[in-house]
Amino acid sequence: MTVAVDNIVEALKQFLDGDQVSVNETVRELHGQDESYHVASLPDIVVFPKTKEQVSEIMKLANELVVPVVPFGRGSSLEGHVIPYQNGITIDFSLMDKILEIRQDDLLVKVQPGVTRMQLNKELKKHGLFFSVDPGADATLGGMAATNASGTTAVRYGVMRDQVRDLEVVLADGRIIHTGNLAAKSSSGYHLNGLFVGSEGTLGCFTELTLKVYGIPEFETAARAVFPTVEDAIAAVTSILQVGVPIARVELVDEESIRQVNHYSDTDYPEKPTLFIEFHGNEAGLAQDVIFTREIMEDHGCVEVQFESDNTARTKLWDARHNLAYAYTHGHPGKKQMVTDVCVAISDLADAVHFAREQLNAANLPGGVLGHVGDGNFHAIVMIDMKDAEEVKRADAFNEAIVQFALDRNGTCTGEHGVGIGKQKYQAKEHGESYNVMKAIKISLDPNNILNPGKIVRIEE
Amino acid sequence: MTVAVDNIVEALKQFLDGDQVSVNETVRELHGQDESYHVASLPDIVVFPKTKEQVSEIMKLANELVVPVVPFGRGSSLEGHVIPYQNGITIDFSLMDKILEIRQDDLLVKVQPGVTRMQLNKELKKHGLFFSVDPGADATLGGMAATNASGTTAVRYGVMRDQVRDLEVVLADGRIIHTGNLAAKSSSGYHLNGLFVGSEGTLGCFTELTLKVYGIPEFETAARAVFPTVEDAIAAVTSILQVGVPIARVELVDEESIRQVNHYSDTDYPEKPTLFIEFHGNEAGLAQDVIFTREIMEDHGCVEVQFESDNTARTKLWDARHNLAYAYTHGHPGKKQMVTDVCVAISDLADAVHFAREQLNAANLPGGVLGHVGDGNFHAIVMIDMKDAEEVKRADAFNEAIVQFALDRNGTCTGEHGVGIGKQKYQAKEHGESYNVMKAIKISLDPNNILNPGKIVRIEE
Repeated sequence: MTVAVDNIVEALKQFLDGDQVSVNETVRELHGQDESYHVASLPDIVVFPKTKEQVSEIMKLANELVVPVVPFGRGSSLEGHVIPYQNGITIDFSLMDKILEIRQDDLLVKVQPGVTRMQLNKELKKHGLFFSVDPGADATLGGMAATNASGTTAVRYGVMRDQVRDLEVVLADGRIIHTGNLAAKSSSGYHLNGLFVGSEGTLGCFTELTLKVYGIPEFETAARAVFPTVEDAIAAVTSILQVGVPIARVELVDEESIRQVNHYSDTDYPEKPTLFIEFHGNEAGLAQDVIFTREIMEDHGCVEVQFESDNTARTKLWDARHNLAYAYTHGHPGKKQMVTDVCVAISDLADAVHFAREQLNAANLPGGVLGHVGDGNFHAIVMIDMKDAEEVKRADAFNEAIVQFALDRNGTCTGEHGVGIGKQKYQAKEHGESYNVMKAIKISLDPNNILNPGKIVRIEE
Repeated sequence: MTVAVDNIVEALKQFLDGDQVSVNETVRELHGQDESYHVASLPDIVVFPKTKEQVSEIMKLANELVVPVVPFGRGSSLEGHVIPYQNGITIDFSLMDKILEIRQDDLLVKVQPGVTRMQLNKELKKHGLFFSVDPGADATLGGMAATNASGTTAVRYGVMRDQVRDLEVVLADGRIIHTGNLAAKSSSGYHLNGLFVGSEGTLGCFTELTLKVYGIPEFETAARAVFPTVEDAIAAVTSILQVGVPIARVELVDEESIRQVNHYSDTDYPEKPTLFIEFHGNEAGLAQDVIFTREIMEDHGCVEVQFESDNTARTKLWDARHNLAYAYTHGHPGKKQMVTDVCVAISDLADAVHFAREQLNAANLPGGVLGHVGDGNFHAIVMIDMKDAEEVKRADAFNEAIVQFALDRNGTCTGEHGVGIGKQKYQAKEHGESYNVMKAIKISLDPNNILNPGKIVRIEE
């Protein structure tokens, strides 16, 4: 940055109130890290806009002065997406947190980017509606769109990209565009919705989102099913999906992870590969699905299965899965989590999970595997002592081996966490010549490379 | 074009066999029009590549000589997409028509672009699978991806863009890229799949597609339901969708169109607004859905409803909807069809259909309205005598009024037919500043503007 911070602050205060611009050390520190193990780096200035016009003014100024800009939601990203390694301005969207409109008949909502998913679901519940994407963290919807977040429900309702009907975006030069409209489908123009979702702040800042919502299902049933091996569990899921049973969630938890859960939650689940499943539908349909699913699972060697429809019992059943990350942290005090995130074709999933377990054992790293098996996406959770350079190195090598395994089978290095800084080094390898197409698009929309520079594509390469 | 056709032909024959290059008048005429009312224009040369390498060589040559290139599937487009108004080379993909791979466990298929959807479904049926997108015509899958086609099943299974896992694309300069991979979800890089689907040959030529397929549903039920007004029918659909009944198709046919069908098919359906509905699921679930749906429809004034689960009876019931286009053509000999294609929010649909009917009457044009009402997408079919300039003018004005109505309500000018030449004039109006973003992307990927020039974006503007 060639312009002095003081001068930028002064220029920002021409259109922002004093309390919307901060150079306070603590504020900068809060915006210099995310929930990952990646090294912190502080922005020079943090701004808190209240309107799209203010965001536009910020971008015009930054573009003119060639100052890097990073949009920031809640900082719950897992690959260093929001860490400003080139410093500059961080735009915090916490003051743009209004639910603007609920269009009940259209099953659409319009929100500002700082609204969190739990805030939205609390409001939607009053209308008998829900927002489907559940990445675990109570992330902002702007952030979830920026990383194309997903989570446990993607197998039924799709990922964040599938929910976005329209984005209002402020471009690098301050222009304001809409990437979509209110129509459920369109063959008009290029599909900018899809391009901007998952762009991680590198193509523009989102200032408004129109999202799909769903009617709360009439009936829900959950199941916990125990299998002798990971291969059996995955084979069962493959069969269930093929016959078209509408699974709403299906999560694999490996035996080491069940052990962590038992220890943390004082449960005594069999310490074997386990599926946590949820079905949404009508009562009669689900009753038939349950019979059918049970048969398929037994064909695949299922040794124990428990179905629950009652609300409390379902919640308790899912607690084991939901508490998994805490269980690992609790069981390894002082250590940080490194979480892999590859996604492969379902037919490669059993091999990939098997490979991950072997590599964990070989590297002598504590951790386990859990997976959104309906999508072929799984996470290996590795507990590492960040002060032990040798252990960090082994964990990095493990992560790299998992990624390479997925890329060798035409999978992806990240199913849902996004690229950020952690997966940047794999972009050229994963996308091949397409990586140059991505760079060309980035340059055409952000010629000064001020928007979250160094994330997804590296222009300087 | 500054280079003589003979010289280009000679250059093409360096890497194509003689019978893969044609300047024959009849062949050129077959590639100078589509199924629409748009004026024909002939390519100078038609080529029939057999491999991606040949497509790449064609593009390298065209780019070097700055010759326009139009990719061509079956010519079933409805807005002049494949008509080469700047002449040049048309690439016909009919020799690239192989189904390359069926990955049963992954619910994926890999096909060449010249495979048609019926060809694919015939093969898939042997495996208990089906491909969901049904635009009516037996289009090629390459063409369907190029226009982001959809049709009656989009309400349940999504549009073409939702089915594309990966495209192999030859870019303007001959580079070959892949836009995706085999993973069901990815947050890696920019979403090129979404960008290239619907790009209508303006960003590249597709040489291979990896597509999602589905298990054939266990049970299907169809219904025909008659309502006093279009408003009642749409209100019923809105209620059914809100409670989450998984409708697989829901089509509205207005009373004038039922009249055409009765006349053509010798049926005696009540000449009132009618819904044709299809449900996919398990038997018990559908039985409950049928009861529930019947109640909702009766609440909305449904005056007659017929449910059918037997295969033959279902097919017969749907015949009325399927034969609609033929019925109109049959009833108006010598006339051509102009078909509007706007899509609006569901809450605006009743008003939009009402407006279309009023405008048809006011313009004294014969025609009717049918709609994919679950998506807010509807077609007004207008029968026009292309030799009657005044009638064509009235039809154009009608089309424009319908589009303007949709754009005023933040809808789209085309829900599924695409832009081609017919909707090009609305692109700047519909997309606003985003239109300039689309132009920037086009220029960054096709700087010589050789790929289907003049479609979607006009660079010269």
